[in-house]
Amino acid sequence: MTQTPIRPQLHSLFTERAQTLIPPPFGAEIPGAVPVVTSFAFGLADPTLFPKAELAQATAEVLAEDGDDALNYGGTFAGLIDLVLQLMQARGVKAEPENLLISYGSGQILGLLPQVFVEPGDVVIVEGPTFMGAVSRFAAAGARLISIPVDGEGMVVAHLEQVLQNLAQQGIRPRFIYTIPTFQNPKGSTLSLSRRQKLVQLAADYGVVVVEDDAYYDLRFAGDPLPTLASMDREGWVLYVGTFSKIVVPGVRVGWACGHPEIIQRLEMFRSEGSLGPFLGRVVARYCAEGRLQGHIQLLIQRYREKCQLMLDTLAQAFPADVRVEAPGGGFFVWCELPPDLKATELLKATRALGVTFLPGTRCFADGQGDNALRLAFSYQPDERIVTGIQTLGERMHALRNRH
Amino acid sequence: MTQTPIRPQLHSLFTERAQTLIPPPFGAEIPGAVPVVTSFAFGLADPTLFPKAELAQATAEVLAEDGDDALNYGGTFAGLIDLVLQLMQARGVKAEPENLLISYGSGQILGLLPQVFVEPGDVVIVEGPTFMGAVSRFAAAGARLISIPVDGEGMVVAHLEQVLQNLAQQGIRPRFIYTIPTFQNPKGSTLSLSRRQKLVQLAADYGVVVVEDDAYYDLRFAGDPLPTLASMDREGWVLYVGTFSKIVVPGVRVGWACGHPEIIQRLEMFRSEGSLGPFLGRVVARYCAEGRLQGHIQLLIQRYREKCQLMLDTLAQAFPADVRVEAPGGGFFVWCELPPDLKATELLKATRALGVTFLPGTRCFADGQGDNALRLAFSYQPDERIVTGIQTLGERMHALRNRH
Repeated sequence: MTQTPIRPQLHSLFTERAQTLIPPPFGAEIPGAVPVVTSFAFGLADPTLFPKAELAQATAEVLAEDGDDALNYGGTFAGLIDLVLQLMQARGVKAEPENLLISYGSGQILGLLPQVFVEPGDVVIVEGPTFMGAVSRFAAAGARLISIPVDGEGMVVAHLEQVLQNLAQQGIRPRFIYTIPTFQNPKGSTLSLSRRQKLVQLAADYGVVVVEDDAYYDLRFAGDPLPTLASMDREGWVLYVGTFSKIVVPGVRVGWACGHPEIIQRLEMFRSEGSLGPFLGRVVARYCAEGRLQGHIQLLIQRYREKCQLMLDTLAQAFPADVRVEAPGGGFFVWCELPPDLKATELLKATRALGVTFLPGTRCFADGQGDNALRLAFSYQPDERIVTGIQTLGERMHALRNRH
Repeated sequence: MTQTPIRPQLHSLFTERAQTLIPPPFGAEIPGAVPVVTSFAFGLADPTLFPKAELAQATAEVLAEDGDDALNYGGTFAGLIDLVLQLMQARGVKAEPENLLISYGSGQILGLLPQVFVEPGDVVIVEGPTFMGAVSRFAAAGARLISIPVDGEGMVVAHLEQVLQNLAQQGIRPRFIYTIPTFQNPKGSTLSLSRRQKLVQLAADYGVVVVEDDAYYDLRFAGDPLPTLASMDREGWVLYVGTFSKIVVPGVRVGWACGHPEIIQRLEMFRSEGSLGPFLGRVVARYCAEGRLQGHIQLLIQRYREKCQLMLDTLAQAFPADVRVEAPGGGFFVWCELPPDLKATELLKATRALGVTFLPGTRCFADGQGDNALRLAFSYQPDERIVTGIQTLGERMHALRNRH
């Protein structure tokens, strides 16, 4: 297409919020093809665990038995809504269809949040470290981000309380608090019960929405689940965000939000594509039926637990003893904190040349911290690559240290 | 979930544009289930034409051969982008990937347009009658709509020119002109070549974007295609919107926009879900390959032409002679104009009780006109229902007339 330089004229047609072009932040998190290197950078799922034949079978059944409705215009499949309501009940939340929005992945919900809640300059509270794939979208909408530290028991809620107090004294009410309370991305830690209680109480006291991103809820390697924030919420301040990406497959793009109807309706209002359509929801619901989802989750837990343990065992041997490694209770990631003489970005430069990558901590903080840390995804790579990749990282750490 | 009355407190957290809740307009256009009545109201596709077995086969092949990538995180499948670029080339447009945005149906593009172009009070020019499923979304964003009449040669471009002149004299520059130049929804008429040339020229002269919604391009019953507006555009003012909904199936939700990269990038910025994901695009591209798409389009043309003719033949016998029926050159709809003593809304009330519905013209105009017209979709109903349904409509017309 010919493009004579019409930029200035065309540009003046754009809305104020469209004038400044902001590149989509999720793009950076998603490689276009299987990397030729050993990448621990992205939270990709393990393709050897994809139930390909079962999904093909589910699709064939849907098309054969229900193809007329599955392939025409139509809203989100009611059977999928029922399924998600059951998942929410298992998570302690008695929800109705009006509490639910089925979306193209949980990422869509996180991408819609700024439309509903963020005017430029509004305060949004996030964790530090956090999942920047979501947080960068809040930032792009002009949110003023305040980071709350995360320790072995999740977000330091006492710190949050101080921040809320200080803001209230300045007359500032944050729009929402974005948290990943269970198997936090990237730290892997889980918010303790007492902190959960306190967080939900603070939300109600200060009139702030809590966005509970619970992508890893089912991928628990040990122990009993803690109650979700949504299950402890009595006033509708918690917006729960879930996804089939980790428990079925990421590629079909089905997630959901569950919360107060006033929020759900507004998220829906800004989803430009109208609904999930009638096809995808039927395929996912059909696949999940007859106990297949629960059986598959058990398989996932077993394999991801093994992969996590393999990474931890290899780390213990390969990394310098003063690298602090946090063993996660579930999820996809191991978080490592480096001693002061090692920098994550410098390490990455060295290992990338050897074909091994990871996510430097600097890409996990909204405020530029994190060069002392790395996030390692054990989810994607096969066992042998986990071993060789971690060994390469360890060798480079020793080498960089000796050079200093 | 418990909902104590927190509305006022919660409400004050919302952005200005989220304060007023606007129900999704597409919902009204899409029935939740197959209607038990003979509905001519919605432009649903004919389910007997869905290539169910071929789509199941395509899905099975994708999952078996390419499942690792199809089911993991990932962007829109590159092969689908290539396919759409080829479709655009067949429509006279030499586009590059940067000109293209693959979307969840063309409805998503139309839903995103206000984000990019419309501040409350901005002028948007539409056709009258038009596809209100799109136009109501412009209105919801606060657009001031100006309707241009449509006759047997499509939009009356001479009228448009006058409107543009008048607006320019007032210092008002419309944001965009929304048009369905080929087999217009609902009128069925097609913009003539000379009007196309004039429209593209006016867009350039006045610096206004033309949104060319070309959903029915391939469903031509006779004659040669006219050049698309996009193919005549030399300066990037035309944003072309296409879809697989009419030529493959609506339920998989795949459409696209093709236009100036500055517009494409901004549409992309506001699509909350990031991309089409890796699965759907592969299924559609796999299905379309090896000439299947072109063969399927030929089948669709043949069947829809027959159904259209059946409706026209039945109308000719069943309707009062002074109902003005426009035979469309393609697409899904027949548009009828009633004599002054018949009202579409009154007719609908009478026929709905008998299980037969249609879209009254009042739902095809942004400015409340249209009670003298009806849109009849011949696409969805089986032949026998087309006959009986049209006969019922005709009987009611005669009956209402006699009662007056």
